[in-house]
Amino acid sequence: MKPVINVGIVGFGVVGGGTYKILTQNARLIEMKVGSKVCVKKIADIDLDRPRAVEYDRSLMTTSADELISDPDIDIIVELIGGVQPPFDYIMQSLKNGKHVVTANKELMAKRGHELLMEAAERKLDLYFEASVGGGIPIIRPLKVCLAGDAIREIKGIVNGTTNYILTRMSEENRSFEEVLKDAQALGYAEADPTNDVDGHDAAYKISILASIGFNSRVDVNKVYREGIHSITKEDIAYANELGYALKLLAIAKERDGKMEIRVHPAMIPNSHPLVSVSDVYNGIYVTGEPVGNVMFYGRGAGADAAGSAVVGDIMDIARNINHNCTGRVGCTCYESKPQIDMADVRTRHYIRMQTHDRPGVLAGIASVFGMNQVSIRTVMQKDTRPDGSAEVIWITHEAPEPSIKASLDKIQTLKFVSTISSWIRVEE
Amino acid sequence: MKPVINVGIVGFGVVGGGTYKILTQNARLIEMKVGSKVCVKKIADIDLDRPRAVEYDRSLMTTSADELISDPDIDIIVELIGGVQPPFDYIMQSLKNGKHVVTANKELMAKRGHELLMEAAERKLDLYFEASVGGGIPIIRPLKVCLAGDAIREIKGIVNGTTNYILTRMSEENRSFEEVLKDAQALGYAEADPTNDVDGHDAAYKISILASIGFNSRVDVNKVYREGIHSITKEDIAYANELGYALKLLAIAKERDGKMEIRVHPAMIPNSHPLVSVSDVYNGIYVTGEPVGNVMFYGRGAGADAAGSAVVGDIMDIARNINHNCTGRVGCTCYESKPQIDMADVRTRHYIRMQTHDRPGVLAGIASVFGMNQVSIRTVMQKDTRPDGSAEVIWITHEAPEPSIKASLDKIQTLKFVSTISSWIRVEE
Repeated sequence: MKPVINVGIVGFGVVGGGTYKILTQNARLIEMKVGSKVCVKKIADIDLDRPRAVEYDRSLMTTSADELISDPDIDIIVELIGGVQPPFDYIMQSLKNGKHVVTANKELMAKRGHELLMEAAERKLDLYFEASVGGGIPIIRPLKVCLAGDAIREIKGIVNGTTNYILTRMSEENRSFEEVLKDAQALGYAEADPTNDVDGHDAAYKISILASIGFNSRVDVNKVYREGIHSITKEDIAYANELGYALKLLAIAKERDGKMEIRVHPAMIPNSHPLVSVSDVYNGIYVTGEPVGNVMFYGRGAGADAAGSAVVGDIMDIARNINHNCTGRVGCTCYESKPQIDMADVRTRHYIRMQTHDRPGVLAGIASVFGMNQVSIRTVMQKDTRPDGSAEVIWITHEAPEPSIKASLDKIQTLKFVSTISSWIRVEE
Repeated sequence: MKPVINVGIVGFGVVGGGTYKILTQNARLIEMKVGSKVCVKKIADIDLDRPRAVEYDRSLMTTSADELISDPDIDIIVELIGGVQPPFDYIMQSLKNGKHVVTANKELMAKRGHELLMEAAERKLDLYFEASVGGGIPIIRPLKVCLAGDAIREIKGIVNGTTNYILTRMSEENRSFEEVLKDAQALGYAEADPTNDVDGHDAAYKISILASIGFNSRVDVNKVYREGIHSITKEDIAYANELGYALKLLAIAKERDGKMEIRVHPAMIPNSHPLVSVSDVYNGIYVTGEPVGNVMFYGRGAGADAAGSAVVGDIMDIARNINHNCTGRVGCTCYESKPQIDMADVRTRHYIRMQTHDRPGVLAGIASVFGMNQVSIRTVMQKDTRPDGSAEVIWITHEAPEPSIKASLDKIQTLKFVSTISSWIRVEE
């Protein structure tokens, strides 16, 4: 047993602060469990002076990440900067210097995790990233270890707290996307530039990481279909509720016949689905495996405390590996190479809302276009005629391929009695 | 790397069959992940001939567990018999013979896990028991490893599928306990003698295991308060629904000021609680830690496939430890010795239903008894008077100590205008 295991924190923002706080406040518990003291030896951040929510020892601070990466006394580098560069270089150099690494960096792990994991494996080092998906929710390790014997078939996740908060507020308060986004920004739940969350980038990184673990095959995040929530209206949410669905930004990964289908988009899910109860900033990840069936993991997907908990769990696991001389015991398991299918090969049910003239033959005219494209209809709902003589019609189709829906809508758009097709949202089981 | 890791299965019932099936069907996946073939070398069961749901190699079978336990080629003994004896002796002897052990045996781990874990630790062997709680739901390892840095404050679980099935059916179909129990027995969800499930023994074993891990302190299962569901009526479930609650058999463990409060009983939980969506035979475990906040784990709590998945996950984790020469790296973490408080020191809210005469002064008379005992009332609901002139009154109290409620009810029982106190159920937040 090493009496002391030293940690260097690179990037001292929200999660860095949370990590520091847990390592100091729960120090005894940590030592009792891993058999060593776990100490923060140095902290690197480009800004030494910004106000921080946590009490910390200022003498630990430096602006130089290299100082930590090259410090022979530091056993574990904790990367909490975010983004691909400089974290990639920092982590690669840390590994080359024989250091274990913990990161919460979803973008980096999704885009270049493979190179880093290969380097770690070659050197029998640990590179852990539990905090990169689902914040404090244990999900990476349960997938990699507990469900190791399962053939994972499907992962459906609400993995972005910001968009889930926005959709929850829109639904509960019947307000528009723009209004709620402003609130979320004021509350600190959405960033000034919300693109990364709202457009589904963050969710795409996370589902890529989960899919690569679940399906044992690297995922190309550029091939992940991605659609954000900015065009979701309160009307669609209200109709979804009326029809027995909730509207969520889902990150979906399915494996079928050795191929991977990975996509992020708003979707309606039936109210009976366990993911429906995942609201506000909470995250939920619903995993289907053979033989385990359906399991769900739920909790806070972000924040100093939640993500800090996951980072500290990783640090402790590595500390145990160091003490038992078995670092590198669980590495990358992407021993397969499964192709990713694109949206043209995806089949789901679809919700389509359109505004039409209210006169005889309209429904039949539209239905016949769906029929010609082999799209069969599950539900159609015509709402009251408006003062201007227009009607709103909502269609829910049976499972149909994306191209058939597209072809149908292209044609329907040209019909004289259809004014607009205002929404097209996928429906998941 | 060992080319082959040999497993011996002791007890070839439902979970044994499931384990065997996964080890054979997912053999390639398992080998690719752990670097060794994992083979079932022998299977012991007292009954060689009973029909089994799985295809298996009959030449592996023996009636002698000792044959497996003393086989020098077997690395891991998988104990799937259940009950305290003979499993305790089998596992102890396996450890003494240098074998790692996987078990799904909640009763054994709750009652005598400590002795076995100490023996394993001394010999640097692994004794894993993920399947003992929550079937296929990853919960033991997430608590022990992912949330290792957290101070766990509370665990609330729906951990018994049989009782959850019964309560779900009673609620959805407005039927009595006795009726639904008969159905559950016919469907194989409840045993001919349902005592172990229905009286909460099974849930008490499971919450004892979870609490000992969460609170790092051994739990005396005999000191766990336990109350079953046989006196739950459909009327209470209907009133619960009317008041915005669901009725569940909860296994609850709380840690406060270094003391543990552990209890199993029916409880009402508000409809907004994530555990409410855990229905039928599903299990859900809701964990509150500092700093992680609330996390929930959900899935199938029993059955060949679900429990088999957890057993195989344990086997693979041990196989990795064998290959990295680090078995025994995560053992018992009960480094604390926290007292268990008894029900007299427990404070919850309470639901009380009673039948009274319908005349002026009745409510005031009852309320004054509660008041004298320092029990304050949150809600009172009087239902329509019946043809016989009696009325039904439902009280929900604010948080109050158990003895105050007991004293109130003892007194209320003696009031002339109270005919019966038909129900007393705790209410959890």
